[in-house]
Amino acid sequence: MSTDHGRPMTNVLFAAPVSVWEAYEAPLRDAFAQKGLSVNLATDLPPEMVDYIIYAPQSGLRDFRPFTRAKAVLNLWAGVETIVGNETLTQPLTRMVDEGLTQGMVEYVTGHVLRHHLGMDIDLLRDTPSWEPRVPPLASERKVTILGLGILGAACATALSNLGFAVSGWARRAKSIEGVQSYGGEAGLVDALHGAEIVVLLLPLTDDTHHLVDSRTLALLAPGAFVINPGRGPLIDDQSLLEALDTGHVAHATLDVFATEPLPADHPYWAHPRVTVTPHIASHTRPKTSANVIAENIRRGEAGEPLLHLVDRGAGY
Amino acid sequence: MSTDHGRPMTNVLFAAPVSVWEAYEAPLRDAFAQKGLSVNLATDLPPEMVDYIIYAPQSGLRDFRPFTRAKAVLNLWAGVETIVGNETLTQPLTRMVDEGLTQGMVEYVTGHVLRHHLGMDIDLLRDTPSWEPRVPPLASERKVTILGLGILGAACATALSNLGFAVSGWARRAKSIEGVQSYGGEAGLVDALHGAEIVVLLLPLTDDTHHLVDSRTLALLAPGAFVINPGRGPLIDDQSLLEALDTGHVAHATLDVFATEPLPADHPYWAHPRVTVTPHIASHTRPKTSANVIAENIRRGEAGEPLLHLVDRGAGY
Repeated sequence: MSTDHGRPMTNVLFAAPVSVWEAYEAPLRDAFAQKGLSVNLATDLPPEMVDYIIYAPQSGLRDFRPFTRAKAVLNLWAGVETIVGNETLTQPLTRMVDEGLTQGMVEYVTGHVLRHHLGMDIDLLRDTPSWEPRVPPLASERKVTILGLGILGAACATALSNLGFAVSGWARRAKSIEGVQSYGGEAGLVDALHGAEIVVLLLPLTDDTHHLVDSRTLALLAPGAFVINPGRGPLIDDQSLLEALDTGHVAHATLDVFATEPLPADHPYWAHPRVTVTPHIASHTRPKTSANVIAENIRRGEAGEPLLHLVDRGAGY
Repeated sequence: MSTDHGRPMTNVLFAAPVSVWEAYEAPLRDAFAQKGLSVNLATDLPPEMVDYIIYAPQSGLRDFRPFTRAKAVLNLWAGVETIVGNETLTQPLTRMVDEGLTQGMVEYVTGHVLRHHLGMDIDLLRDTPSWEPRVPPLASERKVTILGLGILGAACATALSNLGFAVSGWARRAKSIEGVQSYGGEAGLVDALHGAEIVVLLLPLTDDTHHLVDSRTLALLAPGAFVINPGRGPLIDDQSLLEALDTGHVAHATLDVFATEPLPADHPYWAHPRVTVTPHIASHTRPKTSANVIAENIRRGEAGEPLLHLVDRGAGY
């Protein structure tokens, strides 16, 4: 630590593009002040002086070896797949758990589940007058399965259950969530997907979950099922999904994340009548709420308390 | 009452079109049996023998004078505007309060509020590839106002509040609903609509609510507001709404009910780019759950207990 008028200063490097800096600088300074932290926050610091790194993957920072004194790397987003395998990183790594991000995800997932449940697209895409009433089933008769029961998946499962949906969830290890039928492990995955009418992907991207949605798992769904992916693009084997969409076994896919982003203009998803592309908007870290999480972790680090939301680098998230 | 093998029989006339009879006959017979009622249920009975009338407006029944012994008319739907002013009706009138109908309405309203909140139409109607991320506000920053806080309005207000929306509600008399800012009376209507970003109409249709949504009330909304009407068509002055849509003061209207239904093919709502027409599907009475309500009221009538959901014919609902 350096000192400034006798008070200890904590040097925090903000490693992210300028546009992110503009959104986060003021909320971070506010959050540090509220916690009584004396922080030297900058986008450029001599590596050997840095105490904490706030990190976004777009920063270009790949070599963490020069940061000899850094106590932790605080990931600004929820996903850590661009950094978790970085062998130059020897410091503790935390990921973002932002209540604003969680709430935004609940809104996106609940909205698109209801959209598919109610068959809204019929009304939105109708191009000639046609009065043909239909009665959708009630939510209680609609089987929704959430893959991934971390903070985001659990929050979405709870919101959908509160609305009356018949919700199942799956995670590597089964979780206990009120109102949600929870499954775990390989065998549990088959049970969770069997007959599911709406599937929501909120898994972390790991070696185990890469292409988890393929022809084998898609075949388990109810005919005419809906797939919603606000998680990570490579959870889906795109070729298998396109085949299931072409046969109608999957009635529609709403996709927010892709193996390559922005989604290339010639990708078949853009033009497919059974695909809705949303441009990675399902949820965003919100500067105000996430600045509080960063500040709290720096306070903890300086006080010698355990950090929040530490990444298990063996598990990959 | 007639008798059948010594047991008292209650004669119940089902006054509704054949299609409704086909959906309701079996659920009604099941519900009567479960309550231990001995009922002679038929679509054609001599009027002077009828103890109860189950009534749908499409039945064509308009003259209730011949039903000299009838104890009550049990409306099969929630809305009673086609019968409440009928001067030949001297018997108590009940309306339907069906948990299936309420749940369906909550799903429709929550779905379309989230659709407008998230700006889903941008993604659904995009016709050329375009990757332009956007960050909608969180629900807590979105002002939603529900007009009408009866069973349907209150259930929708609660569901939206539980999802985090900033919900206000208005009714003739202010109601107390947890998490909802409630207004009542003429002055309260102005407060409830001032700055509202999404307005949901769930009022009963009465002389007071006819054309309640007109140029004066629409002017109170936030610029670019959304209007959702799953209530009754004539709550809206269509000409005023079309003008507000043309200027963009109202960004979009999602309309489920209309002054004339089916909505005529040449009505400007069909082709208007800022209008979504849904063909009176927001919610339906569900045969199974509503048959239980009918059976319970007949049980109460026969036992001399007060009927559920009696219509206040002076108030009109």
